[in-house]
Amino acid sequence: LTIVESAAPEQSTPKRAVIVAIAEPARAAAWRERLAALLPDYTVVDDTEPTPADRVRYAMVWKPRRGFFGAYPQLRAILSIGAGVEDILSDPMLPQGIAIVRMIDDALTVGMREYVLLHVLRYHRRQPELEAAQQERRWQPIDAGTAAERRVGIMGLGVLGCDGARHLSSLGFKVAGWKRKPAAIDGIEVFAGREGLDAFLARTQILVCLLPLTAATRELIDAEFLKKLPRGACVINASRGECLVENALLAAIDSGHIAGATLDVFAREPLPPDHPFWTHPKITITPHIASLTALESGARHIAAAIADLEADRVPLGLVSRGNGY
Amino acid sequence: LTIVESAAPEQSTPKRAVIVAIAEPARAAAWRERLAALLPDYTVVDDTEPTPADRVRYAMVWKPRRGFFGAYPQLRAILSIGAGVEDILSDPMLPQGIAIVRMIDDALTVGMREYVLLHVLRYHRRQPELEAAQQERRWQPIDAGTAAERRVGIMGLGVLGCDGARHLSSLGFKVAGWKRKPAAIDGIEVFAGREGLDAFLARTQILVCLLPLTAATRELIDAEFLKKLPRGACVINASRGECLVENALLAAIDSGHIAGATLDVFAREPLPPDHPFWTHPKITITPHIASLTALESGARHIAAAIADLEADRVPLGLVSRGNGY
Repeated sequence: LTIVESAAPEQSTPKRAVIVAIAEPARAAAWRERLAALLPDYTVVDDTEPTPADRVRYAMVWKPRRGFFGAYPQLRAILSIGAGVEDILSDPMLPQGIAIVRMIDDALTVGMREYVLLHVLRYHRRQPELEAAQQERRWQPIDAGTAAERRVGIMGLGVLGCDGARHLSSLGFKVAGWKRKPAAIDGIEVFAGREGLDAFLARTQILVCLLPLTAATRELIDAEFLKKLPRGACVINASRGECLVENALLAAIDSGHIAGATLDVFAREPLPPDHPFWTHPKITITPHIASLTALESGARHIAAAIADLEADRVPLGLVSRGNGY
Repeated sequence: LTIVESAAPEQSTPKRAVIVAIAEPARAAAWRERLAALLPDYTVVDDTEPTPADRVRYAMVWKPRRGFFGAYPQLRAILSIGAGVEDILSDPMLPQGIAIVRMIDDALTVGMREYVLLHVLRYHRRQPELEAAQQERRWQPIDAGTAAERRVGIMGLGVLGCDGARHLSSLGFKVAGWKRKPAAIDGIEVFAGREGLDAFLARTQILVCLLPLTAATRELIDAEFLKKLPRGACVINASRGECLVENALLAAIDSGHIAGATLDVFAREPLPPDHPFWTHPKITITPHIASLTALESGARHIAAAIADLEADRVPLGLVSRGNGY
């Protein structure tokens, strides 16, 4: 029998803390537990527990309350469990000079890939029209043509956008992308900036919005924008509700210019019960489930980011405050 | 100025004929025109035109009337514009010893690939449940998990089945296939014959039927078969309606064992207006549009098959009468 002595001294300095601010308790507990297992050198605490403020070195958050960050003078970085960080950046109490890291997670990428493929194929194959025909017991064969005849446009060519574009392209779709700055991406026609927008929209039959929410993308999809899509185009929004002017979309659909929309995100979530989107026959609602961060791989991403920051390396997913993502 | 003399003698022997038997006149005319352009050495005629019976060497058909083939003593081969040839094989007047060639067409493969991906993703991501929640204005986030957790089973591993299996597999789905005889296919677990069926069904959450209609597959999907799928499984049938016992499917859905079905094919088509499938909330009807032969590439396949037969080569898509496909 070998007795292994504890390596820790009796009177150790108190561990540094990672504070978890995730509104939903069950979800917070699950993340806390996963992260604690990966970070033995840290105490992982909930923001509802009393914790000495100057011990808090990192915060792992999802939609934290306004002013949250001001309470921790030693905070070195904020780690988001989602890919969008607009709620963090818009907090006026956000300290200068601390790092913000957004979620980059394989499960997030795979989930969005599946969502984008499903809903692009659904419009491409005119499944909503077939379901309307079924409602009326109408046998109405439709030849939707093949992907090679269908032009899909992806707005936002980050990790999720590029992945979706690549998979659509490999199914034969004619895929173009739009982003802030010019870039060369294999197999995808890239349009850039405000000056590339009109041409991008004019050639796009199925539009997929995967943009981060920033000052430049807020309410980007408005009446004028929608007019630039060809008649009969469909819109899929899986980024942030605020990228789209909801009334403008309703008007464009009701005028017959836009054939349909599939929306995963909304200006207010949950979508209020009296919102006209719920009952609109040309609008498909999904309750912000396009892509969900997986606990296991998501916690690994955050632990790796903390290790990088401690070693003065640039972590994956480091946010540029200037760009907003 | 050069005058080129016609190479054809004044008194040529009458051209051999390809007869077209496609019930829908507009469709028949389009096929006739395409094929005529590819076969200058043949007269391509409609079966409604008076044509000397002994000049007819090939017949291009879709659901020909019973006994059609008996009229042409010099018939060498029957060329189907669809992938399924059960209507030809079941004709008691079908002459012995003539070749039957089924359609193999890229557009047919691509169309089925899109259909299979769309409807597998639709069940995988629980889109019908989300749409039911929308009907009730219910914000009900569902974590469907990723493809890696979903087991899809493809029945029939011909050109269409293998292609669908490969694409589902590359999206991360756990794909198995079932066929008549054992075979090794990369990345797909293959179950074979009656003895492999139970294990195949037991592991399958989303079943896709792409089987040819033969004596062995007729009414294969019956009450006992459906019981062997796990509770909550979904069924997609894009082969032939007769592979499935319609009442057994209805009973299995109504008992809660089968969660839903998407059907492109039916024992009677068009599906009669009073058929219970139309209004069943768990059944999605598509009007035999999963996969359509493209005129251009389809006519090329038929012209190539005729050239092969004339040169005593085995044409692509040659049907085995014994196997039924």
